Amino acid sequence: MTDSLAALAQRLQQFAQARDWQRFHSPKNLACALAVEAGELLEHFQWLSEAQSGHLDTASKAEVADEMADVLLYLVQLATVMEVDVLEAARRKIERNEQRFPASR
Amino acid sequence: MTDSLAALAQRLQQFAQARDWQRFHSPKNLACALAVEAGELLEHFQWLSEAQSGHLDTASKAEVADEMADVLLYLVQLATVMEVDVLEAARRKIERNEQRFPASR
Amino acid sequence: MTDSLAALAQRLQQFAQARDWQRFHSPKNLACALAVEAGELLEHFQWLSEAQSGHLDTASKAEVADEMADVLLYLVQLATVMEVDVLEAARRKIERNEQRFPASR
Amino acid sequence: MTDSLAALAQRLQQFAQARDWQRFHSPKNLACALAVEAGELLEHFQWLSEAQSGHLDTASKAEVADEMADVLLYLVQLATVMEVDVLEAARRKIERNEQRFPASR
Repeated sequence: MTDSLAALAQRLQQFAQARDWQRFHSPKNLACALAVEAGELLEHFQWLSEAQSGHLDTASKAEVADEMADVLLYLVQLATVMEVDVLEAARRKIERNEQRFPASR
Repeated sequence: MTDSLAALAQRLQQFAQARDWQRFHSPKNLACALAVEAGELLEHFQWLSEAQSGHLDTASKAEVADEMADVLLYLVQLATVMEVDVLEAARRKIERNEQRFPASR
Repeated sequence: MTDSLAALAQRLQQFAQARDWQRFHSPKNLACALAVEAGELLEHFQWLSEAQSGHLDTASKAEVADEMADVLLYLVQLATVMEVDVLEAARRKIERNEQRFPASR
Repeated sequence: MTDSLAALAQRLQQFAQARDWQRFHSPKNLACALAVEAGELLEHFQWLSEAQSGHLDTASKAEVADEMADVLLYLVQLATVMEVDVLEAARRKIERNEQRFPASR
């Protein structure tokens, strides 16, 4: 994982440890939490047109950034407890997609 | 954003551009896709106990890593089109959580 | 659809019509709203053990019932705009599952 | 619950019993399964415009009806194990919404 994501992962581990929250952080629970946050993120867009979703005001944009942060935080914590290098997995996925969907030229 | 996430973002932008897929990548659509992938990730855990979710076999773990990659890929693309620094947003969120939930000692 | 679900569907149509909300109720938007509500429902369970999830107190149970209601309301509205008989679709699905997963005896 | 939903609930109970699947059907697991199915439903719409989502071809519409059925099946099973009357909860929710969002006239 990149230095910055690794630093984030380490800080989240310390945060959970200091609050004795690690016992809640099974992969199953973290996957639930991630899906919940993905829903909260989507909530901001559910009644907007696609065009409107590209022109949020500053306050809405800050709220959306906050939900995106929550998604990332749970994804990083899931990566920690599963011992998965999610950045490496993402790179492999792009490579597969590049072969699966060849560019037109 | 960190160098590695920024590199990922750039590669995804080129990928979408080369396939003329950027017209599909409104914030709303990317938030939908992220929620869909969060559901696919959760699917692997839905009938497992929490304990079982911590002991996946190698094949299941690879599938889970693959779904986590998809979540990250859509999150990074959403960050690009929204011009949000998701890593910075995640750091701010941890800081707020550290104050909101003080450690016991 | 059953009389009761049909009555619910009709009432929801009148509700949307009286508020000029039907223009927001594309199948895509209703599917987004349903996913958002499914996330809010899941939120109540995300940190509970399975055993705990079977013993909610009265207040939590009322909140969960409320989220379940939201899921049903969007499902019924989606059925209306898609002209799908969801109860009939559910019956057909059970029949397929009965053949796909034969009972042990 | 309406006769038809009650009949569905009873049939699902027999289905689970005959396969000894009830041990998997904690409220938490059923809420996970419902969120997963809501994601699969949304998947059909994620890259469509709102207008396109209102004009699916027959095959896509059948697939969407199938996902809607899955959502209903898990919702009904959750209602059974939680002993919640989801149809009654839905009626109460509409009443609250009618007061919360008064019609323009």
